[in-house]
Amino acid sequence: MSDSESASLPFRHVAVIGLGLLGSSVARAARACLPGIVITGYDADPAVRDRARAIGLADTIANAAGEAVRGADLVVLCVPVGAMGTAARELAADLSLAAIVSDVGSSKASVAAALGAALPGHRIIPAHPVAGTEQSGPDAGFATLFRNRWCIVTPPADVDAADLARLVAFWEAFGARVETMDAEHHDLVLAVTSHLPHLIAYTIVGTASDLERVTQSEVIKYSAGGFRDFTRIAASDPTMWRDVFLNNRDAVLDMLGRFNRDLAELEAAIRAGDGEQLFDHFTRTRAIRRSIIEMGQDDARPDFGRADHSRAGKETVSG
Amino acid sequence: MSDSESASLPFRHVAVIGLGLLGSSVARAARACLPGIVITGYDADPAVRDRARAIGLADTIANAAGEAVRGADLVVLCVPVGAMGTAARELAADLSLAAIVSDVGSSKASVAAALGAALPGHRIIPAHPVAGTEQSGPDAGFATLFRNRWCIVTPPADVDAADLARLVAFWEAFGARVETMDAEHHDLVLAVTSHLPHLIAYTIVGTASDLERVTQSEVIKYSAGGFRDFTRIAASDPTMWRDVFLNNRDAVLDMLGRFNRDLAELEAAIRAGDGEQLFDHFTRTRAIRRSIIEMGQDDARPDFGRADHSRAGKETVSG
Ligand SMILES: NC(=O)c1ccc[n+]([C@@H]2O[C@H](COP(=O)([O-])OP(=O)(O)OC[C@H]3O[C@@H](n4cnc5c(N)ncnc54)[C@H](OP(=O)(O)O)[C@@H]3O)[C@@H](O)[C@H]2O)c1
Ligand SMILES: NC(=O)c1ccc[n+]([C@@H]2O[C@H](COP(=O)([O-])OP(=O)(O)OC[C@H]3O[C@@H](n4cnc5c(N)ncnc54)[C@H](OP(=O)(O)O)[C@@H]3O)[C@@H](O)[C@H]2O)c1
Repeated sequence: MSDSESASLPFRHVAVIGLGLLGSSVARAARACLPGIVITGYDADPAVRDRARAIGLADTIANAAGEAVRGADLVVLCVPVGAMGTAARELAADLSLAAIVSDVGSSKASVAAALGAALPGHRIIPAHPVAGTEQSGPDAGFATLFRNRWCIVTPPADVDAADLARLVAFWEAFGARVETMDAEHHDLVLAVTSHLPHLIAYTIVGTASDLERVTQSEVIKYSAGGFRDFTRIAASDPTMWRDVFLNNRDAVLDMLGRFNRDLAELEAAIRAGDGEQLFDHFTRTRAIRRSIIEMGQDDARPDFGRADHSRAGKETVSG
Repeated sequence: MSDSESASLPFRHVAVIGLGLLGSSVARAARACLPGIVITGYDADPAVRDRARAIGLADTIANAAGEAVRGADLVVLCVPVGAMGTAARELAADLSLAAIVSDVGSSKASVAAALGAALPGHRIIPAHPVAGTEQSGPDAGFATLFRNRWCIVTPPADVDAADLARLVAFWEAFGARVETMDAEHHDLVLAVTSHLPHLIAYTIVGTASDLERVTQSEVIKYSAGGFRDFTRIAASDPTMWRDVFLNNRDAVLDMLGRFNRDLAELEAAIRAGDGEQLFDHFTRTRAIRRSIIEMGQDDARPDFGRADHSRAGKETVSG
């Protein structure tokens, strides 16, 4: 590493704890976007550590969390939110007081509490990149996962401004846009934009798997009518999502209550044959899609640009 | 048209009534896959007829439904399911008794009843290609929409076997796979694989648009956590979907009741902090995704192969 390189880096040495989809993406993005940074990694699963070594995810994959964080000035915990406390305790003894400790967990208030309890006196700045896929494990990650995505940072009230600026610079180097807010507000926003959608998808896929008069094979065959979209979300990692619901319970139940009331209203409209109410509702919900695409948060092509229509050989002709 | 060409065609002349996403895709597929077939079209909307002429969707775009079906041996109604009866009555006087009348409507029992009432004595074989996108109108269609997709045909009990075989050949020429079943069963299957998913998506997008403590702009910014998938479905045509819910009410309410019970169970598990039940449920729902991909009914790439991560310039690096 040349002096000019290291001078422009927000951190000299990042330790990534947990090398699944998120952890391996952080390591890959650091390698791609922060040339010269030292990357060490650790995962509780020996098979994941072996795989991480085989694909060269980091400069060193350590066999213990403490070993991975020694000398690091940034530690990013990329484990399920229910494992944050344990993971932090495992590395506490080897953690420098100068290091910043952050994470990528999908809920923030409970993670902030767990990290605070495990690492008293340390510089903790929780974060959540709103980016992911339905896959997991070290092979699922990629360096561009965070590009053009928001990363929400939830600093404590007494955060050191210089520390915060360095963490923001780290995420911005990956192409992410950073927003700060308090942990409680994060948890409410994500309850509606992520946690409730996952709960609903998990539910409907379960409902469809359990019918007497419609077979599983029919559900699969005719899934292109809408259902298949929900199966992608409901294929997400069960451990991760169990932990999210247990750790963001109140906000999820709040949003679910609102959803249930709105669904009951549409149900009543269908029962009453009230076409006007249905039409009005379906018209209101159209606009938001346009905004999401304008904000660069989704693929504008119909059907997300899926390629399965054209698999049989010829190209998809549109227009 | 040469003799050899016309001899192998299941129909000599197809009339497409309604030239939106589905109708324009049928016309384009007929042009691409059945060379030599005569294609006529009609749409109730003069602007759609003009556009259809401008893009050369058919050999002739007629200014009246009767004119479009004169001489046709196949008529395909591609209008919202609530408009099927009206559309059929408009062309009844000009329809040959030898012509087969079919449709693409998303519900089947009510469409069969409406067509039967409007066209007594005619050869009616309802059908539903399980293929579409969230877009509508004549520019949204494409010739490969039906490729590798299922088309469900719901023939009456006394259908003429040769008529049915010709209609099956028509859809197979577009690359579709054809299944026959009775209309009531179709409506039950599609209630769970298509209609309920749309109802849920319309609901949650409405819920998210109407919060006091989370702004619309936050919902849009952080939609990549799952919500954006639902906004695609909830951007579908309001008229089409109003009609589907009014015309498949009983099956939709049946499936919705089951969904509500399953959701209440997961809600109770979250409230009770029952991680084991959540984990078990989330594990069961994973398998179905694999089957859908193996059956060629969805894109296997993570996130449906969305391109928005790589928009900023470089390619998405995976692995
Ligand atoms: N997936 C997404 O779309 C997404 C998006 C944004 C944020 N997140 C958040 O990112 C975090 C990681 O999720 P992921 O999708 O990357 O999961 P993942 O692919 O399953 O990877 C998590 C890894 O952490 C390991 N681990 C568990 N406990 C550990 C410990 N105490 N010390 C070290 N390693 C440990 C796991 O090993 P074992 O399998 O042996 O437990 C696993 O290899 C979660 O907090 C999640 O909420 C996920
Ligand atoms: N979209 C999908 O994903 C999908 C998938 C499978 C099946 N379907 C079914 O396909 C049918 C058409 O849907 P679509 O998506 O193609 O809708 P679309 O793009 O909105 O097109 C429907 C067209 O039919 C016209 N129309 C309405 N009443 C008519 C009448 N009496 N005579 C002639 N034209 C009339 C409409 O004109 P106006 O706008 O002036 O009314 C409109 O141009 C529906 O039954 C739907 O359930 C849709």
